[in-house]
Amino acid sequence: MYPESLQDLIESFKLLPGIGEKTAERLAFSIINMDKEKTDFFATSISNAKNKLHKCPICSNITDQDLCSICSSPNRNKKILCVVEDCKNIILFEKTGSFKGMYHVIDNLISPLDGINPEDIGIDKLVKRIESSPFEEIIIAVKPSIEGETTSLYIKKILEGLKIKVTRIASGVPLGADIEYIDSMTLERALQDRKEIE
Amino acid sequence: MYPESLQDLIESFKLLPGIGEKTAERLAFSIINMDKEKTDFFATSISNAKNKLHKCPICSNITDQDLCSICSSPNRNKKILCVVEDCKNIILFEKTGSFKGMYHVIDNLISPLDGINPEDIGIDKLVKRIESSPFEEIIIAVKPSIEGETTSLYIKKILEGLKIKVTRIASGVPLGADIEYIDSMTLERALQDRKEIE
Repeated sequence: MYPESLQDLIESFKLLPGIGEKTAERLAFSIINMDKEKTDFFATSISNAKNKLHKCPICSNITDQDLCSICSSPNRNKKILCVVEDCKNIILFEKTGSFKGMYHVIDNLISPLDGINPEDIGIDKLVKRIESSPFEEIIIAVKPSIEGETTSLYIKKILEGLKIKVTRIASGVPLGADIEYIDSMTLERALQDRKEIE
Repeated sequence: MYPESLQDLIESFKLLPGIGEKTAERLAFSIINMDKEKTDFFATSISNAKNKLHKCPICSNITDQDLCSICSSPNRNKKILCVVEDCKNIILFEKTGSFKGMYHVIDNLISPLDGINPEDIGIDKLVKRIESSPFEEIIIAVKPSIEGETTSLYIKKILEGLKIKVTRIASGVPLGADIEYIDSMTLERALQDRKEIE
């Protein structure tokens, strides 16, 4: 019913996650009403992103260079490795400014019930990297869920022979959060992991 | 922090209405994980839509031809005109299959409080078209809101000298809707516009 070039654009938006028919229509019309300069930028960005971006062969971070900016930096501490479950999380940790080590992105978290086993999330790549690197500590920075805990324990176990310290980031009550809105599992963990005030 | 080609794609998505930083990131990553065939289609669709689509010079419907498919069709009833406030609504009326006349899209609804006056919504273009066409009935099919009523009354008034029937689509309780969830203005209108059961 719509002209073909409009229908194609609507179908394109429907390829995106969480975008249904109505939203796709709305977004398609917004494209028509945009400046040509902006739509050119948009179209080029899509092509460029697809053509240039790939996973860093060392850490699986996303990059448009041979190695990602962290793996290729001479200013990082090569003795400490932070394992994250998503390359977006690297940006978040970098924003804190307090971690200067290396990263490694695993593809997912172990979840036997969903059929996701250690070999599906690239643990072997991680282990190979650790075995051939001078890491002294591995920080597991994944979501504190059942899958996250399973993954952390699995990594800890598989590295047992290597005499490397394996830690996980702290769980507990977020700064500024009202205790009354925190779930009981988090409170339980916050109690377990309590620290002496110095 | 992200590679430039990824950052550009995120900025592109942020150009769209209702898309913030987080959603833009999510959509950008989904592009990276799509097949190249699909991203090519997406990028081409954006360029094509912007380059090919424009308003039909007669009715302001969106089209990629000289005239829109309805204005150029020989099979439409040229004596009846349906005025809508958005070209998306043409599709909706077409889907009912019960209207075979012509359409005219106005740019907005009159709303003096928002500074939208008759000249801002292209009423003069509508009137010129009606004056030079063999229309016998004008159906005003805009939203039954204060702005919609104002616009309807204005069009009715400005066409007074032309001896053309001006009607509006019925308002009332939607089919299948529970009366208890209908607002009182709609119920009032449904009562006013009651029809004898035949």
